[in-house]
Amino acid sequence: MAEYPTSIGTSDATSITLLGRDLANDLMGKVSFGELAFWLAALRRPSAGELTVFEAVLVALADHGFTPSAIAARLTLTGAPESVQGALAAGLLGGGSRYLGVTEDCGRFLAEALAAHDGPPPETEAGWDELAAQAVTAQRAAGRLVPGLGHPVHKDGDPRTPVIFRIAAEAGVLGPHLKLFAAVGRVHPAIIGRTLPLNGAGVCGAALADLGFPPDLLRGFALLARTAGLLGHLAEEMRNPAGPGIYREADEHLRYVPPGTAG
Amino acid sequence: MAEYPTSIGTSDATSITLLGRDLANDLMGKVSFGELAFWLAALRRPSAGELTVFEAVLVALADHGFTPSAIAARLTLTGAPESVQGALAAGLLGGGSRYLGVTEDCGRFLAEALAAHDGPPPETEAGWDELAAQAVTAQRAAGRLVPGLGHPVHKDGDPRTPVIFRIAAEAGVLGPHLKLFAAVGRVHPAIIGRTLPLNGAGVCGAALADLGFPPDLLRGFALLARTAGLLGHLAEEMRNPAGPGIYREADEHLRYVPPGTAG
Amino acid sequence: MAEYPTSIGTSDATSITLLGRDLANDLMGKVSFGELAFWLAALRRPSAGELTVFEAVLVALADHGFTPSAIAARLTLTGAPESVQGALAAGLLGGGSRYLGVTEDCGRFLAEALAAHDGPPPETEAGWDELAAQAVTAQRAAGRLVPGLGHPVHKDGDPRTPVIFRIAAEAGVLGPHLKLFAAVGRVHPAIIGRTLPLNGAGVCGAALADLGFPPDLLRGFALLARTAGLLGHLAEEMRNPAGPGIYREADEHLRYVPPGTAG
Amino acid sequence: MAEYPTSIGTSDATSITLLGRDLANDLMGKVSFGELAFWLAALRRPSAGELTVFEAVLVALADHGFTPSAIAARLTLTGAPESVQGALAAGLLGGGSRYLGVTEDCGRFLAEALAAHDGPPPETEAGWDELAAQAVTAQRAAGRLVPGLGHPVHKDGDPRTPVIFRIAAEAGVLGPHLKLFAAVGRVHPAIIGRTLPLNGAGVCGAALADLGFPPDLLRGFALLARTAGLLGHLAEEMRNPAGPGIYREADEHLRYVPPGTAG
Repeated sequence: MAEYPTSIGTSDATSITLLGRDLANDLMGKVSFGELAFWLAALRRPSAGELTVFEAVLVALADHGFTPSAIAARLTLTGAPESVQGALAAGLLGGGSRYLGVTEDCGRFLAEALAAHDGPPPETEAGWDELAAQAVTAQRAAGRLVPGLGHPVHKDGDPRTPVIFRIAAEAGVLGPHLKLFAAVGRVHPAIIGRTLPLNGAGVCGAALADLGFPPDLLRGFALLARTAGLLGHLAEEMRNPAGPGIYREADEHLRYVPPGTAG
Repeated sequence: MAEYPTSIGTSDATSITLLGRDLANDLMGKVSFGELAFWLAALRRPSAGELTVFEAVLVALADHGFTPSAIAARLTLTGAPESVQGALAAGLLGGGSRYLGVTEDCGRFLAEALAAHDGPPPETEAGWDELAAQAVTAQRAAGRLVPGLGHPVHKDGDPRTPVIFRIAAEAGVLGPHLKLFAAVGRVHPAIIGRTLPLNGAGVCGAALADLGFPPDLLRGFALLARTAGLLGHLAEEMRNPAGPGIYREADEHLRYVPPGTAG
Repeated sequence: MAEYPTSIGTSDATSITLLGRDLANDLMGKVSFGELAFWLAALRRPSAGELTVFEAVLVALADHGFTPSAIAARLTLTGAPESVQGALAAGLLGGGSRYLGVTEDCGRFLAEALAAHDGPPPETEAGWDELAAQAVTAQRAAGRLVPGLGHPVHKDGDPRTPVIFRIAAEAGVLGPHLKLFAAVGRVHPAIIGRTLPLNGAGVCGAALADLGFPPDLLRGFALLARTAGLLGHLAEEMRNPAGPGIYREADEHLRYVPPGTAG
Repeated sequence: MAEYPTSIGTSDATSITLLGRDLANDLMGKVSFGELAFWLAALRRPSAGELTVFEAVLVALADHGFTPSAIAARLTLTGAPESVQGALAAGLLGGGSRYLGVTEDCGRFLAEALAAHDGPPPETEAGWDELAAQAVTAQRAAGRLVPGLGHPVHKDGDPRTPVIFRIAAEAGVLGPHLKLFAAVGRVHPAIIGRTLPLNGAGVCGAALADLGFPPDLLRGFALLARTAGLLGHLAEEMRNPAGPGIYREADEHLRYVPPGTAG
C-alpha cells in the first residue's frame, strides 16, 4: 500500500494540526499570514529578521499595475463573473518566464554562481566583485542575459531594490545571494558596456534565496504576492469594470487581413 | 478614447505608487503582506483590530491537508514541473462551490438576511435569534442548505470557529454578520431537527463580511489563503513527490468496463 | 480497496483500447477527431446524421474574433511563452456564464421545459408554440432572461442559426429541443414585446441537447470548439504578437485615481 | 493608434467571416472540426492527405486513461462542479514538459537536426541514418535524452507509431521529419546501447512538423486532442464520480510526519 508522507498538517474530529502546531490555538491570532506562508514552504518558523525581509518581498511583488496578467484576470472575470477562482488562475498563468520568472531566474543564477565557487565565500567587496565578474562573463559567453538587470519603466533605478538591501541588512539576514547581486550591479557595466539598474524582481529573488528557498520555488512566492494584487484588481473590476472596455477597444482596433494576402 | 480609471497604483521612471503611497518607502517593511492584501481589496487601510481578524481568517483557511485541490496541484506539477504557475492555478480551480465557496455562500446568506431586516440591528441575543430563525426557516423553505453548518471531519465542532469569534470580540470588530451567525448556531437545531457545528469556512465568511467586503469577493480571500497552502504542498512535492504515487495508485485501481456493458 | 470503473479506455504493453476499440487499428485513420470527441463524451458512436450536426456545431462555435477569452489567452502567452497550456487554459477560463454558458443555459432551459410537459411531444407547430409560450412566460415571470435570444453584433439575425436548423433537418436529427427553440423564436415577440434573433450559441445548445447530451456537459463542447479557435489565436500571436500592443494600450489609457478621491 | 492585424476572422451585423470564408454557408456542414482546427492554426486549408494525417494524430493523442491530467480534471470538477471550464483548464495545465511536451520536443529535435543539415535532404535510407546518427550522438553528447524514444507502458513498441507512418505514407505526406524519426529508430541502439520503441507522442510530433507547423505550436495540438479526452473523463465523472474516491484514498494513505522529524 502506497503511503504519502506529509508534514504540512493533519486533522481529526476535534483538532487541526498545521506545521506541528494546533492551528486554532497556536497559530490563529498568533502568526501573520506572511509568517504562515514562509513556514508552510520552509517547514520551519522564520526568525523575526527573516520574516521582515519575507513580508517586504511579498509587498514589493504584489502588484505592478495593468500588467498582461492583471488584464487577463479582469477579462476572464468579464466572461465568467461567477468564478473568481478562474479569473485568479488566468491572472497567475501569465506569471511565466517573461515576467515573474525573473525572480526565479535571478535566484538560480546567483545560487549556481555560489555553488560553482570553490572555498569559503569572499570576505571583501573585491572578492564578491571577482565572483560576480566571473558569473556575468560566463553568462554573456553563453549568449544569455544576466537576470535581474534592467527594467522597461524604471530605467534609472528600481526604487524597490535599495529598500530590500537596506531591510535585509537591518534585519541581519543580508546573505551571499544579495551580496553577489550587489556585486553584479557594480561590475556589469565594465563587462557588458552599459549600466543597467538592478531590478525589483531580481533583488527579491536574491533575498528569497538568502532565506534558504531553492530556486525552483522562488517563482511561487512571486505568484503568492501577485495573488493579492490580482484580488485587488478583481475587487476594482467588480466595482468598476474595465474588462469590457479593454475588450471593446481591442476589438475596434482589429484590422482584418484576409488570409493569404499577408504573413 | 477609452480610459480605465484605477486606484490600485501607478508608476514612473523613479517611483512606484501603490494605494496612494510610495511603495518602496511607505509600504515595504512598514506593512505586512496581510495588511497589503486587505488594503488592495478594500482600498482603505485596516484598523489594527480589523487586521488581526483578517490575518487570523487567512491563517484559518490556508490549508486543510490533501484536499482535491492540493492533490490536483501536485499532479499538475508532476506533468509540468517547469510551470509552478500552472500547478498553483490548477489547485485554485478546485476552489469552487463545493469547498471554498462556503465562505462566500455563508457571507452572502448572512448579508441578505441583514439586508432583508427592517429597522436597526437587534440589540439583544433574543433579537438576533429571531432574525436567525427567520433566515434559517426561509432558507429551508426554499429547499436550500444553510451555509456554514456542518463539516465532514469536525462533526463535534470545528476548532477554528470559537477562535474567530474570540479574536473578533477581543479586537472590537465582532459585527452583525458574526452575531447573526452565532444566532444561527443557537436556533438551527429546533428548526432543522439536528445540531450541526458552525464550520470554519462559514465563520470566516461572516468575519470577512463584518470587515466590509461584499459577498462576491469573499471566495477570493479563501483562494488567497489557499495559495499559501498550495505553495506549501508544491514545496513538499518538490522535496518528496507524492503526485506520481497518487497517479500510479489511481491507475492501478481502475476497473475497465467496456462501454455498452454498464452505465 | 476502492475501484474506479471507467469505460473510456485501457492499455497494456502492446495495445491501447479506447471506447472498446483498438485505438491504433480501429480508430486512427478510421474516425475523424470530431467523431471521437462525440464518442468519448456519449460512450456511443454517433450515426452519420448525428456526426454531421455535431461537427457543424463545433465549427460554428470555434471562434468569434478578439473575444475577452482570446485576448486573455494572447496576453498570457506574452507573459509565459514557454507554456502554451497556460495560455489555452487562461482562454478557456473566460468561457463562463456570460459567453459560452449560453449554450448550456439554452439547452437546460429547453430540456426543463420538455421535462415539465406532460404527455407526448406536440405534433403540430401550434402545439410547439403553446409549449414555448408557457416556457417563455414562466421564465419572464421568474425575472430571468430567455437564453438563446439576442446577440450584441448580429442584431438582425445570427447567420449560424438557420444553418444549424437546416443541417439538422437534412440529417434527420431535428429533435424536440430544436423544435421548441424554433417555437421560442416565433412566440417570444408577443410575450416580451420585441423581436430578438435566435443566437448561434443557443441553437447549438439545442442541437447538442437533441443529440442526447445532458445540460451539464453542453458548455464543455463549446469549450472544445473554442480550443481550436484559441489555438488559431496563439498561432497568430506567435507569428505576429498583438498581446504586447494590447497591454501597452490598456496601460497608456489608465487614469490613476488616488484612492479616497473616488469610488 | 495601435492596430492589431488578424487573419482569423471578422464579423458584421449579418455575417461571420472565418478564414476568409463565410462561416455559416461555406464552412458549417462543409468542413470537419479537425479540418477547421488545421486551417485556423495554419491559415491555409489542408489537402485531403494532410487532413487524414492530422485527424489521425488528434485521435492518437486524445486520451491515455487516468493520467495525472485526467485525475486533476476530475478532482477539480469535484470541488467546482459548476465550472466545467475550470476542470478542463486544470487538466490541460498538466500538459507540460513531462507528458504532452514530448510531441513538441520531438518535433523540435527533428526540425533542428534538419535545419543543421547542409544541402538537400538525403535520398537514401543510409543518408537518413547518417543524419539521424549525427543528431542522436550530438544529443547524447550534450547530456540530453533523445525525445520520442521509450514509453513506460509500451515497452515493446507503441502501437500508434507504425500506424502514423503507414497513414502518412498512404496519404503521400510522409516528409523529412518522419523519415528522420524512422532513422532515429534504426540507429539509436548502436549509439545508446539499448533498443527503445519510438513512442506515439514522438511520432505525432514528427507528423505534425511534416505538415508544416512550427515546433512552438506542436504541444498545442496535443492539448487540443487531449481536450476531447478530458471532456470524456468529465462526462464519465458526471455520470459516475471517481474524484471523491481518489481524494478519500489519497487522504487515507497520508502518513503525517511532524515537521523537524524528517526531511
